[in-house]
Amino acid sequence: MAVATQTLEELCINSIRFLAIDAVEKAKSGHPGLPMGAAPMAFVLWDRFLRFNPKNPKWFNRDRFVLSAGHGCMLQYALLYLTGYDSVTIEDIKQFRQWGSRTPGHPENFETPGIEVTTGPLGQGIANGVGLAMAEAHLAAKFNKPDAKIVDHYTYVILGDGCNMEGVSGEACSLAGHLGLGKLIALYDDNHISIDGSTDISFTEDVAKRFEAYGWHVLHVENGNTDLDAIHKAIEAAKAVTDKPSFIKVTTTIGYGSPNKANTAGVHGAALGGDEVKLTRENLGWEYPPFEVPEDSLKHWRKAIERGANLEQEWNKAFAEYKSKYSQDAAEFERLLSGKLPEGWDKALPTYKPEDKAIATRKTSEATLNALAPALPELIGGSADLTHSNNTELKGAGDFQKGQYQNRNVRFGVREHGMGAICNGIALHGSGLIPYCATFLVFTDYMRAAIRLSALSQAGVVYVMTHDSIALGEDGPTHQPVETVASLRAIPNLTVIRPADGNETSGAYKVAVEYANQHRPTLLIFSRQNLPQLVGSSIENTAKGGYIVTDSEGTPDIILIGTGSELHLCTQAAEKLRAEGKKVRVVSLVSWELFDEQSADYQESVLPKAVTKRLAVEAGSSFGWLRYLGSEGKIISVDRFGVSAPGNVILEKFGYTVDNVLAKAKELLG
Amino acid sequence: MAVATQTLEELCINSIRFLAIDAVEKAKSGHPGLPMGAAPMAFVLWDRFLRFNPKNPKWFNRDRFVLSAGHGCMLQYALLYLTGYDSVTIEDIKQFRQWGSRTPGHPENFETPGIEVTTGPLGQGIANGVGLAMAEAHLAAKFNKPDAKIVDHYTYVILGDGCNMEGVSGEACSLAGHLGLGKLIALYDDNHISIDGSTDISFTEDVAKRFEAYGWHVLHVENGNTDLDAIHKAIEAAKAVTDKPSFIKVTTTIGYGSPNKANTAGVHGAALGGDEVKLTRENLGWEYPPFEVPEDSLKHWRKAIERGANLEQEWNKAFAEYKSKYSQDAAEFERLLSGKLPEGWDKALPTYKPEDKAIATRKTSEATLNALAPALPELIGGSADLTHSNNTELKGAGDFQKGQYQNRNVRFGVREHGMGAICNGIALHGSGLIPYCATFLVFTDYMRAAIRLSALSQAGVVYVMTHDSIALGEDGPTHQPVETVASLRAIPNLTVIRPADGNETSGAYKVAVEYANQHRPTLLIFSRQNLPQLVGSSIENTAKGGYIVTDSEGTPDIILIGTGSELHLCTQAAEKLRAEGKKVRVVSLVSWELFDEQSADYQESVLPKAVTKRLAVEAGSSFGWLRYLGSEGKIISVDRFGVSAPGNVILEKFGYTVDNVLAKAKELLG
Repeated sequence: MAVATQTLEELCINSIRFLAIDAVEKAKSGHPGLPMGAAPMAFVLWDRFLRFNPKNPKWFNRDRFVLSAGHGCMLQYALLYLTGYDSVTIEDIKQFRQWGSRTPGHPENFETPGIEVTTGPLGQGIANGVGLAMAEAHLAAKFNKPDAKIVDHYTYVILGDGCNMEGVSGEACSLAGHLGLGKLIALYDDNHISIDGSTDISFTEDVAKRFEAYGWHVLHVENGNTDLDAIHKAIEAAKAVTDKPSFIKVTTTIGYGSPNKANTAGVHGAALGGDEVKLTRENLGWEYPPFEVPEDSLKHWRKAIERGANLEQEWNKAFAEYKSKYSQDAAEFERLLSGKLPEGWDKALPTYKPEDKAIATRKTSEATLNALAPALPELIGGSADLTHSNNTELKGAGDFQKGQYQNRNVRFGVREHGMGAICNGIALHGSGLIPYCATFLVFTDYMRAAIRLSALSQAGVVYVMTHDSIALGEDGPTHQPVETVASLRAIPNLTVIRPADGNETSGAYKVAVEYANQHRPTLLIFSRQNLPQLVGSSIENTAKGGYIVTDSEGTPDIILIGTGSELHLCTQAAEKLRAEGKKVRVVSLVSWELFDEQSADYQESVLPKAVTKRLAVEAGSSFGWLRYLGSEGKIISVDRFGVSAPGNVILEKFGYTVDNVLAKAKELLG
Repeated sequence: MAVATQTLEELCINSIRFLAIDAVEKAKSGHPGLPMGAAPMAFVLWDRFLRFNPKNPKWFNRDRFVLSAGHGCMLQYALLYLTGYDSVTIEDIKQFRQWGSRTPGHPENFETPGIEVTTGPLGQGIANGVGLAMAEAHLAAKFNKPDAKIVDHYTYVILGDGCNMEGVSGEACSLAGHLGLGKLIALYDDNHISIDGSTDISFTEDVAKRFEAYGWHVLHVENGNTDLDAIHKAIEAAKAVTDKPSFIKVTTTIGYGSPNKANTAGVHGAALGGDEVKLTRENLGWEYPPFEVPEDSLKHWRKAIERGANLEQEWNKAFAEYKSKYSQDAAEFERLLSGKLPEGWDKALPTYKPEDKAIATRKTSEATLNALAPALPELIGGSADLTHSNNTELKGAGDFQKGQYQNRNVRFGVREHGMGAICNGIALHGSGLIPYCATFLVFTDYMRAAIRLSALSQAGVVYVMTHDSIALGEDGPTHQPVETVASLRAIPNLTVIRPADGNETSGAYKVAVEYANQHRPTLLIFSRQNLPQLVGSSIENTAKGGYIVTDSEGTPDIILIGTGSELHLCTQAAEKLRAEGKKVRVVSLVSWELFDEQSADYQESVLPKAVTKRLAVEAGSSFGWLRYLGSEGKIISVDRFGVSAPGNVILEKFGYTVDNVLAKAKELLG
């Protein structure tokens, strides 16, 4: 049926729909179905509830909005354009999914101001939303006063069936329910269509009941297509419940308005096609040419600019008052937001002498975390239920729990993937917090999708991974990383550091904190077993990624290259070789990425091309090592799965002994 | 309190407990808490319900038992020993967690007959259980007759809090509920303790309600410590519900019997210690020395041997009858179980000529799958909601749905991790089924833990991964694999194949099917974009992993090495170089793992050491490539994240053009 006249609201909603339809049509690529179906809830949310300032997308106290169903990104680009963000103009929308545009195929926070997090891989956005809400709760508990709530925003997420099928969303939402994050409000675009067709073919669970089981406040809008009032009331009701996150199931029709494709998978991920676009225009009474938004609609939408300016102004006023009353807190708050680390924070880093006792790097990591905790109030995090194996507890910092959000030890539960995605959310809250999270190294496999997104979306997360090799022993091959370090080194923009002792642990954290502050993730790798404090290890040199630990005079006959728990085998073997008159250099290659960033001259000074006899020792896969070995180099590596036995037995059987390093070095020396 | 006399049942249950306590004590490593708490449910299940033959652990129609909480493996080793399996003797139990023992730190199917799947990484086992139940349902629907149920067993899983926190279990259990797998029965060891302490600190959701939401039949045994009757009745009730999987929440006390450590995290993952072992002995009235099982107990437990022999004998009789009535079905059933592929199955593989049209390898993959489907009835699988993007539908094979279990297209939903773990379960059902599963290549990150377990636990799964590079285009960097291929090549025992055209696709499937049959997983990587059919590509040579596609006479001046969608750039550039008088060899390095398995002579014949000018072209990370490039070689690679734009634009910008290959080759030639 043709619609003769449209209310202003319909006009505003259809503006979203046709921007999405036309952009996808022009790109001949994209997902029109979600924006068409979710436009009403997006309108109600953005027009009536969401507090934001289009002219300052980074205004601290804005409500966070996440489109977890990231494929529907034209919804978000349309909203950014309509509400007057400078980041998305109509020209940008015309460049949807094109080279160099600010409107890529999925929402990317690093491309488009106004986008909070990078979504597309399903389930990540809602888990990021949990992190955003945790960041808000933490800062609110820390800085708000009875007479001054300077931290006070909601986190809204739109998610779809795909997000709800992914395990990562379940993990994060179970934790959100546990934590009672009352200011997290998720709108579930219940359109019962996924790429393969009706959700009847694979997804017939009762999602609302599942969220009730998680401890969420659950609501249902039966007609999300036209009942704006019901959407409005549901969001109001959600806001009114302050001790539970809210889940609003909004039943919609995917591709609403398309006479032949609505409610089919055909409208999910492909352009409607010229004919259907025409029919949809007729059906919704849309008389406007592509990319034209009627004046009444734009005028209404753009009220967001004044509204936003006022909101920020009010907040600025409130903050000024806060500052006058609570100058110390205000100064700390401003420091955090400014992205400045506390002056001299790194003086807290522990240092070690060779005579200090042998200790596992997971324990020097613990010492470092605890030394940094008072110096770096922005440090917040924890472990996926391995707190006392990963040694990640900040002593005295309390547990981050419902009603105890000022505390800094997060109990993630056995939810690695959710943990990583939550930490991305905390980092991308943009308020200076430095999230860290921990599990056994091998279980990075469970959270790899989140780690990749840290690297891609510039989320300054510190990954603390312990039990880093076959040396963990009895737990056996399911728990022993072999290929894991290589697979992480392969991820672009992720810095992997595997310290050999206490000083290198401090050095690793120095880099990790600085990088987190610069929105770069790091992954720190620690041993289960005790390791000696080495002569020649250094905090400063760790930052170079590779450096000479001990050396002989003159050009070395051989270079022994170790990382982490194997470096001490190299230094011990070197001593024996030197006693036999050989010139031996020992290099710690503590971080490939950091070493690769050094100047060619520096690299040559550490690993001179002329020295072709090189022996690397690492208790992991040889994959990728060849570039440091040169044409004649060898490596003692593990290129098979591990076994269950005491760690020292395994190390011996796999050749990780001083004697074997010595023997292999001598073979090389010929 | 000291227990003066014990019933036979208590004796049997305490036998499990003390084998676990003493083995962990001797190893000074392990997890006594779960076996102590779950011993009663294990006793009731194994003594009264589980149908198995200890003397033939591979008897086809056995009930499958999975300890998803794999850290509690001493429970399972105790059960195997007590019921008379030859794989676990009392000596093996004394060797718990030692080098070379059959009682490793987590249950490993490839080490210990009687263990069905490899567990330990939490959540995997229950998802494997879903796969085992699917395999049973499929074979039952396919082979059973109204008068002959030759496929008829249950799948029982014991899982814990950790499993229930993991997203992978949620994914698989949601699907199990959807599919109505009535013969899957999960016993949830609800001991409210995880490693970090009480589940109160991170896991307060209503798990039973969540499973109801998934569509499971849910039961609760309130006192799982001593109320054997309630456990018995619950399992009976679970078996009585045939159209839903059953979830029995069994509330227990972790470390039951230990006066000071029961109900604490202290008993989860560490030996009790000599004093507490003594106190526990006193408390439970256990007068026997370590590793001694009282005669009455052992006698009772060992009745399982005769029971099992009878069960198998009955089944053998039933099968003989079946065979006499349904000889054709019986022959096919026996073929499947024998692990023989159908005679001449590979004749179905499509072949291509250079003049055949350009087509995406995801489509040649589809053609191959559909050509193989009639030839290989054991092929069963599907996609994580990307059926028509991954092109994985077996046409005419129907959807595997509730009541339609004979069908072969599995609709996994957007549940990559669950999908992988389910396929491991199908493969490890040991009945000859070849499971395949599919998603976009980049989303292997979501399921990497399951892929690793395929490789470790010898599960013959075929992974079908499409959209294999930046060339997928508009979806952008979240969807574009860069480091993904490298990270998969790093996994031991996993064979990664990236075909360049139709013939190589057929060659890849030939390997994949043969490997699956030999219990080895493969991961096949396909393009989104069209690719030409190449002169010189070959099914046979694909099996060698690397081979000469085109060559000039004499020693080549340069070797161009390509894989997958970049190979045709190499062959085209080679033609141009040859026209300029250069001697050029083009090598397809379609699978590193397969190439590395060839003889040194063969490898040298393809990539002679003397030819140092080599240019590799792959639209992915350079990580690991150096070993094939030699000292002078170069690579056109992608060592950063991708971007959103049309695929052809991206390929050009990133240098994936014939002209650029030509230019880089000329640079090398000098």
